[in-house]
Amino acid sequence: SKYEYIKAFESRDEIIPDVFFAVRVDGRVFRKFAERHGLEKPVDERLVTLLNETAGHVMQAFSGQVGIAYGHSDEYSFIFRRDATIFGRRTSKLLSVTVSLFTSAFVCGWAGHLGGSTPLRDTPSFDARLVVLPSFRHVRDYLAWRQVDCHVNCQYNTAFWLLVQKDKLSLDDAHKTLRGTDTGMKNEIMWQRGVNYNNLPQVHRKGTVLVWDRALDVPDDRALPKPEAVCADRVAGARRIICLHCDLIRAPDDDLLLFGSLQNPDAEALR
Amino acid sequence: SKYEYIKAFESRDEIIPDVFFAVRVDGRVFRKFAERHGLEKPVDERLVTLLNETAGHVMQAFSGQVGIAYGHSDEYSFIFRRDATIFGRRTSKLLSVTVSLFTSAFVCGWAGHLGGSTPLRDTPSFDARLVVLPSFRHVRDYLAWRQVDCHVNCQYNTAFWLLVQKDKLSLDDAHKTLRGTDTGMKNEIMWQRGVNYNNLPQVHRKGTVLVWDRALDVPDDRALPKPEAVCADRVAGARRIICLHCDLIRAPDDDLLLFGSLQNPDAEALR
Amino acid sequence: SKYEYIKAFESRDEIIPDVFFAVRVDGRVFRKFAERHGLEKPVDERLVTLLNETAGHVMQAFSGQVGIAYGHSDEYSFIFRRDATIFGRRTSKLLSVTVSLFTSAFVCGWAGHLGGSTPLRDTPSFDARLVVLPSFRHVRDYLAWRQVDCHVNCQYNTAFWLLVQKDKLSLDDAHKTLRGTDTGMKNEIMWQRGVNYNNLPQVHRKGTVLVWDRALDVPDDRALPKPEAVCADRVAGARRIICLHCDLIRAPDDDLLLFGSLQNPDAEALR
Amino acid sequence: SKYEYIKAFESRDEIIPDVFFAVRVDGRVFRKFAERHGLEKPVDERLVTLLNETAGHVMQAFSGQVGIAYGHSDEYSFIFRRDATIFGRRTSKLLSVTVSLFTSAFVCGWAGHLGGSTPLRDTPSFDARLVVLPSFRHVRDYLAWRQVDCHVNCQYNTAFWLLVQKDKLSLDDAHKTLRGTDTGMKNEIMWQRGVNYNNLPQVHRKGTVLVWDRALDVPDDRALPKPEAVCADRVAGARRIICLHCDLIRAPDDDLLLFGSLQNPDAEALR
Ligand SMILES: Nc1nc2c(ncn2[C@H]2C[C@H](O)[C@@H](COP(=O)(O)OP(=O)(O)OP(=O)(O)O)O2)c(=O)[nH]1
Ligand SMILES: Nc1nc2c(ncn2[C@H]2C[C@H](O)[C@@H](COP(=O)(O)OP(=O)(O)OP(=O)(O)O)O2)c(=O)[nH]1
Ligand SMILES: Nc1nc2c(ncn2[C@H]2C[C@H](O)[C@@H](COP(=O)(O)OP(=O)(O)OP(=O)(O)O)O2)c(=O)[nH]1
Ligand SMILES: Nc1nc2c(ncn2[C@H]2C[C@H](O)[C@@H](COP(=O)(O)OP(=O)(O)OP(=O)(O)O)O2)c(=O)[nH]1
Ligand SMILES: O=P(O)(O)OP(=O)(O)OP(=O)(O)O
Ligand SMILES: O=P(O)(O)OP(=O)(O)OP(=O)(O)O
Ligand SMILES: O=P(O)(O)OP(=O)(O)OP(=O)(O)O
Ligand SMILES: O=P(O)(O)OP(=O)(O)OP(=O)(O)O
Ligand SMILES: [Mg+2]
Ligand SMILES: [Mg+2]
Ligand SMILES: [Mg+2]
Ligand SMILES: [Mg+2]
Ligand SMILES: [Mg+2]
Ligand SMILES: [Mg+2]
Ligand SMILES: [Mg+2]
Ligand SMILES: [Mg+2]
Ligand SMILES: [Mg+2]
Ligand SMILES: [Mg+2]
Ligand SMILES: [Mg+2]
Ligand SMILES: [Mg+2]
Repeated sequence: SKYEYIKAFESRDEIIPDVFFAVRVDGRVFRKFAERHGLEKPVDERLVTLLNETAGHVMQAFSGQVGIAYGHSDEYSFIFRRDATIFGRRTSKLLSVTVSLFTSAFVCGWAGHLGGSTPLRDTPSFDARLVVLPSFRHVRDYLAWRQVDCHVNCQYNTAFWLLVQKDKLSLDDAHKTLRGTDTGMKNEIMWQRGVNYNNLPQVHRKGTVLVWDRALDVPDDRALPKPEAVCADRVAGARRIICLHCDLIRAPDDDLLLFGSLQNPDAEALR
Repeated sequence: SKYEYIKAFESRDEIIPDVFFAVRVDGRVFRKFAERHGLEKPVDERLVTLLNETAGHVMQAFSGQVGIAYGHSDEYSFIFRRDATIFGRRTSKLLSVTVSLFTSAFVCGWAGHLGGSTPLRDTPSFDARLVVLPSFRHVRDYLAWRQVDCHVNCQYNTAFWLLVQKDKLSLDDAHKTLRGTDTGMKNEIMWQRGVNYNNLPQVHRKGTVLVWDRALDVPDDRALPKPEAVCADRVAGARRIICLHCDLIRAPDDDLLLFGSLQNPDAEALR
Repeated sequence: SKYEYIKAFESRDEIIPDVFFAVRVDGRVFRKFAERHGLEKPVDERLVTLLNETAGHVMQAFSGQVGIAYGHSDEYSFIFRRDATIFGRRTSKLLSVTVSLFTSAFVCGWAGHLGGSTPLRDTPSFDARLVVLPSFRHVRDYLAWRQVDCHVNCQYNTAFWLLVQKDKLSLDDAHKTLRGTDTGMKNEIMWQRGVNYNNLPQVHRKGTVLVWDRALDVPDDRALPKPEAVCADRVAGARRIICLHCDLIRAPDDDLLLFGSLQNPDAEALR
Repeated sequence: SKYEYIKAFESRDEIIPDVFFAVRVDGRVFRKFAERHGLEKPVDERLVTLLNETAGHVMQAFSGQVGIAYGHSDEYSFIFRRDATIFGRRTSKLLSVTVSLFTSAFVCGWAGHLGGSTPLRDTPSFDARLVVLPSFRHVRDYLAWRQVDCHVNCQYNTAFWLLVQKDKLSLDDAHKTLRGTDTGMKNEIMWQRGVNYNNLPQVHRKGTVLVWDRALDVPDDRALPKPEAVCADRVAGARRIICLHCDLIRAPDDDLLLFGSLQNPDAEALR
């Protein structure tokens, strides 16, 4: 039709070739959402399981194009391989389809994980953004950044809710008590209330890493982090996605289980 | 943390001020989705109602920033006012939140509209794109473009399914029969099979327009298109959103019901 | 060659259709350049003439695609028609060719205007930027913005150099004296030193507007601002470009001489 | 002023951190320019010298931010270090200032190199574009791409002008003769007319590489390509820029003279 000229007003937004990129989704006003649905504080493991399963679904949907995913709190990051070709690398397609799949799987999965006791009261939603990561070094730093965030939040929130729940402090007073405290002081606050930070579940302190199972490719004698949880196969015959709660910051660049799916097998030395 | 420098790799993607823009969501592989869920052909009115309600939910969520929305088939377009400030006009926030809200409301609403007979079998998803519309003329042409698309699809699909369902043609043969036919020939095909195109429901031929009810502002003596369906109030005291199935192409620029919420009341002559 | 894949790393940067845009060039560190070449303060009319001629050359080079240009101090803005198709509206081509043509003509023209007394000592250079202007209203406001800048600079600089040259104030003391003064106070300072701001040459106070001569198209009985200076024809038979030093802020939208080349003759009412 | 809101219509165009980028300038319609100025075919060494000096001037102007430059025919590419901070990495500033400096120095330098016999008849101009290069590998491939282009052009043009000048073929017939010929056939054509391609000057076959002299840093015992020409010092005490006509494709990644200024001295292994 004579109106089709309007198509030219869409922006061209292809990501340049040969760079990695992350799409990060983050729950909108999840503080309030958690409140309204009476989620456990600071971490509700049913929510964690739902988010991990949701992310596994997204990762499957993009077949091998996502090499690793990482999530904690109300966010999940999907790291696409540098050779990903999906949607012609168009930013708006990548952003919108990732967040739509995520939202859809989250809502569909809710009943199975939290629905019994906690019916869905609002329509939960997520934002998304795309971050270009020009080299493997930037991928490592991106993941480290998010995992440091996980750790810092975990410490703060654990201490915070102990002050509120054990000491009966008001929310405001709990924040005031923690203002300006360093890591050591927060650990001390937990310790005095019977919590040893290092004994908190790994999943709280480290978040969750999703990777493709490379069982067959990995030499038996390499010590691998033990997967604590395993996503069910979704597509018959498809490769499995496994959940780890391991440290991403200290892992070596050539950790095949963590990073082997992010680069071509023949990438020189997994740079 | 020392990793925070990674935040600088996010792109800055604010839309320039003072332009309208459309966010269009479109169902991913809905042909297959419709098939798997046994939806009625060519138009399943339960789906239409669900999509309209879903879009109404999105429009409410952005308060007054969306001035008009239009949908048909598996797509919906939200036209934002030129003075919209939401999310600082950041493209990725606008895209991702719109499509996430849409997906969430669609999945949440499914059971109420189609769930009884048709449980949700996959996780439906949508893509989204953003189209900058520099002037009101472009808004009109954008809407006209989508409504022409609705009309063309409606004609084609109605004729197509008559050939398949009445004449027992194979899908391939039906497509072949229609190849190269013009409007008149398609109308003839329908006519011979007992269908008068012009008597098809407005909603099939025109799609759905969502606008804010301006009942109080509109002089009684102005002939307004009669709203055929009305979304329920969602927020107590909030302005209502109403559904119309009217012609968007021939409407005058100063049609207050259609376009009055898209521009400031004091915009000179609603240009 | 196998290296040609690198071409895909160039960005796609087309401007959307149907919007006006300005390319503004601005001299780099012209304060120092003016100093080193002993230019007259605050305005050296030889420089003004050179800049105007240079801009006329650029405007000619883009044939009819630039509808109006405006310059003052060390800057010039070229407003492209909303239907400009040049270089497929690619931002980097538009930016780079405009600033390159400008620089080239400036250097080539130097000897003719200032060369006798003032040989070129450095290689002068300019930056450039592109500003999207979605409607004619934004074009008007863009031009007004630059002309207000001209006026404010003219007032400040005239007062400033009077303090320096007549009162023998140091540069620092002159700045201090003017800090916080309003328009009235600056006029007073000039007045006391024998200068009536309103009697300064128009070109100082208003800068220069370049437009295409529409002598033949314009009805005789319309009062047109009188062109004070006229660029020589550059291409035999080509339409002439004329220089005006008129007020751009108060001019009516339908001033054919100023804005008639910016829009199609058949644009409805020159909106 | 109330018009300043227009500043928000400028686009934000910062290049992401930590990537290299090339700015390539290319002469506009230089075929015609060369013709009008009677330049020697296929390569006029006076033009080459002028272009090299011009590029050296640009490289100096950006201090150490450009690590290497490469040019041939009417084009020059400047490769910026991945840690370049100049102009806040704003694309339009980088593009416009590079091409403006280049144009200015070219015009200013003309008289010294070609002016005697060949006064400048038009205002020469250049376009420019910016190419993001995410890794050192892409820098290598970018340079290889341009040098292959140099080689292919050199072969074609040398054969072409031999056919025109020795065989008195028309331009059209010369093109027809060369259509579909491979490297070997072109070499044969040259050979039969007394030209051994491999004996053509390096500068014709390889173009020119500009690098920072690292004389003091480079161990004596490393065999370095011998600089054939040397730019004069421009700034007293500044590091020198030297011209090479060496092969960029086969050079090893750790060639300090070629690539040592492109990366920090402490970059791990010059990756
Ligand atoms: N009770 C509870 N809250 C959680 C859990 N996981 C995340 N949250 C809450 C804690 C935080 O307040 C919030 C995540 O922080 P954000 O910075 O994403 O802020 P929020 O989502 O509220 O707002 P936003 O729209 O992202 O700006 O979600 C959980 O397992 N249990
Ligand atoms: N049976 C049935 N099908 C519908 C209805 N509404 C839309 N559809 C189908 C018809 C079309 O095949 C499809 C929409 O066409 P699209 O061009 O969006 O293609 P599709 O979604 O299949 O793929 P895409 O991922 O958008 O490229 O949805 C409906 O009410 N009933
Ligand atoms: N003496 C003299 N100076 C002039 C004349 N026209 C412009 N200038 C000087 C006055 C200002 O200091 C300068 C223009 O101001 P800008 O804001 O463009 O700053 P400048 O070019 O120094 O630095 P920039 O690289 O643009 O940030 O040029 C003139 O006719 N005579
Ligand atoms: N005679 C002569 N011509 C040269 C020399 N160096 C470059 N040229 C000419 C040969 C080519 O026709 C032209 C460069 O080719 P381009 O692909 O850049 O095309 P051109 O500049 O004509 O058009 P453009 O505006 O870049 O699309 O410049 C030279 O040293 N001598
Ligand atoms: O859906 P279209 O026709 O506007 O085009 P697209 O979405 O850009 O392409 P596709 O849906 O085929 O990916
Ligand atoms: O809108 P906000 O506050 O969430 O801003 P943001 O850009 O999402 O920032 P962050 O990365 O801190 O969520
Ligand atoms: O010069 P090219 O071949 O890289 O391509 P372009 O400059 O984008 O195109 P053109 O010079 O023909 O405008
Ligand atoms: O780099 P500057 O300081 O010139 O910054 P700018 O973006 O050019 O700002 P302005 O529009 O004030 O010249
Ligand atoms: Mg946020
Ligand atoms: Mg959140
Ligand atoms: Mg969060
Ligand atoms: Mg599509
Ligand atoms: Mg679809
Ligand atoms: Mg569709
Ligand atoms: Mg500036
Ligand atoms: Mg300046
Ligand atoms: Mg200036
Ligand atoms: Mg070109
Ligand atoms: Mg060229
Ligand atoms: Mg060239």
